[in-house]
Amino acid sequence: MIRAYAATEAGAKLERFEFDPGPLAHGDVEIDVIACGICHSDLSMRNNDWGFTAFPFVPGHEVVGKISAVGDQVTNLTVGQTVGLGWVATSCGTCAECLGGDNHHCANSVGTIVGRHGGFADKVRCSATWAIPLPDGVDAKKAGPLFCGGLTVFNPIVEYDVKPTDRVGVIGIGGLGHFALQFLNKWGCEVTAFTSTGAKADEARKMGAHNIVNSRDADELDAVAGTFDFIISTVNVDLEWNRYLAALAPKGNLCVVGAVLEPMPISAFSLIMGRKSVTGSQVGSALTTMKMLDFCARHGIETVTETFPLSEANEAFAHLEAGKARYRIVLENDFT
Amino acid sequence: MIRAYAATEAGAKLERFEFDPGPLAHGDVEIDVIACGICHSDLSMRNNDWGFTAFPFVPGHEVVGKISAVGDQVTNLTVGQTVGLGWVATSCGTCAECLGGDNHHCANSVGTIVGRHGGFADKVRCSATWAIPLPDGVDAKKAGPLFCGGLTVFNPIVEYDVKPTDRVGVIGIGGLGHFALQFLNKWGCEVTAFTSTGAKADEARKMGAHNIVNSRDADELDAVAGTFDFIISTVNVDLEWNRYLAALAPKGNLCVVGAVLEPMPISAFSLIMGRKSVTGSQVGSALTTMKMLDFCARHGIETVTETFPLSEANEAFAHLEAGKARYRIVLENDFT
Repeated sequence: MIRAYAATEAGAKLERFEFDPGPLAHGDVEIDVIACGICHSDLSMRNNDWGFTAFPFVPGHEVVGKISAVGDQVTNLTVGQTVGLGWVATSCGTCAECLGGDNHHCANSVGTIVGRHGGFADKVRCSATWAIPLPDGVDAKKAGPLFCGGLTVFNPIVEYDVKPTDRVGVIGIGGLGHFALQFLNKWGCEVTAFTSTGAKADEARKMGAHNIVNSRDADELDAVAGTFDFIISTVNVDLEWNRYLAALAPKGNLCVVGAVLEPMPISAFSLIMGRKSVTGSQVGSALTTMKMLDFCARHGIETVTETFPLSEANEAFAHLEAGKARYRIVLENDFT
Repeated sequence: MIRAYAATEAGAKLERFEFDPGPLAHGDVEIDVIACGICHSDLSMRNNDWGFTAFPFVPGHEVVGKISAVGDQVTNLTVGQTVGLGWVATSCGTCAECLGGDNHHCANSVGTIVGRHGGFADKVRCSATWAIPLPDGVDAKKAGPLFCGGLTVFNPIVEYDVKPTDRVGVIGIGGLGHFALQFLNKWGCEVTAFTSTGAKADEARKMGAHNIVNSRDADELDAVAGTFDFIISTVNVDLEWNRYLAALAPKGNLCVVGAVLEPMPISAFSLIMGRKSVTGSQVGSALTTMKMLDFCARHGIETVTETFPLSEANEAFAHLEAGKARYRIVLENDFT
């Protein structure tokens, strides 16, 4: 039996929940959970905001743990290895996206918490493709959030070909933004943090920001018009998008990874003049995850965490919902 | 003196107009106009829609002619060469964009009809950088529209790295779209024309479309969901943008070159899921223009023209405004 915490209906508090996972599939591994990050999408899924949550629902898709069992066709992993698991738990391996190196876009993929039971548990399972070994130098207790929050901002840096000579901006200094600042600084870029929270300016500088711009001050935004090659938006609130497009240099890219619900009223002229882009990005491939972890190990990049025991997952959720997380919450497995 | 047709105020009909262009600048060339295409932006400028038209206003930025004089510092062109001139007349040559190969984004550039007198004239001038020689095999009387309309759709194919293996779509089969179909077909792609004008389907196939989709039929659009790597929109009317984003495959790009005035209500989720982009593009560099002309010569790509004498420029404008152009109007210089 796997012991976990689950919500039995939309919005419900998490309760103790046990389930029999059945025999381990040939290509899967089972992971003894060490710690599991909390992502805002765990909350969205718990609340069934997107309409496809299956209950009972076990959250958790920023897992780090030790492999406790491997299926009989698994050749790339062995029992005892420390691995991480993010949003994607399985992919087909044979579709165009998988064959093309984009297994995070596999149409047949299954999410770790989408119709499966996630990492708020003592054990979790996934396919051997998506259990990514932690390199030396990455702290298992802090690494969980890299597998979703970190990857979400690392992937567009890779896929949109951000260059070390680029001037870049990060909108929103939270769970995602605090990774983006660290990555882009070590990527070699000149990094500007856009934040409306003055108190975060000093911390943003410590994380790698060279400059701070008040994200809600039109004058400050206008003063940096035409200067950014790449801006990544990690917030989920409506902004003056065309003002941010104006902040881009010719050929600049405004990449949105925060799930803003209101449509963004993008002006065609803002895109045409200067050949600009508004783009999105969605987690990243298994290979990009490996590259991210190596990059973190090389540069000492890690999550700024607040830690709760897994048994206090409800308190942790409340802390996140209150907007108090600095900057990412990790739950430590305290099943004994 | 240069003889031309000019509007003396916003919206006015064109009238005969003569002006003294002064001594030829050191780096400029003078071109005896053979023919000049009409672009919708000539109309917008004539009407001062964008607020920066200088009157008297001489339209025309799709010029082909023979060089009649070169400035004393011009080394790349000689008198008698047949050249074309598009939207950009001069660029500085020293800014980051010029040095980076993007002289069409030069912030110091001057447009052929922006504070200068354009090609509805017997002569026109520009810097030697922007007078692009026509290769053998390109018909001077039909080539003018390539320099703005053609380049506008050729450039994003180059800059956004469209691949011959891509599945691509063209929204709107008009002055721009009829070039896009030809380019993309010869680029090697599988080409779909999106048009609301059923009568254009046969012509679109002749220009290179392999498939036709009714651009206003939601069912037809939904049937092609997830299939396009690149869609270029050449229309200036509001469309169901998120439905076109849904038509993109993972990593797909919806490129807007039609100057839609209404903001496009882009959903962040439409961009995030599948890592998609909404992009723009604005003419192209001098070098890209040369590459486009070589591509046209190699593949027999040319403008489908309707011809008017320059002295009937007002009638030609009326024909364009009535939406009757099939597919691009060229004015032949009939000054004697």
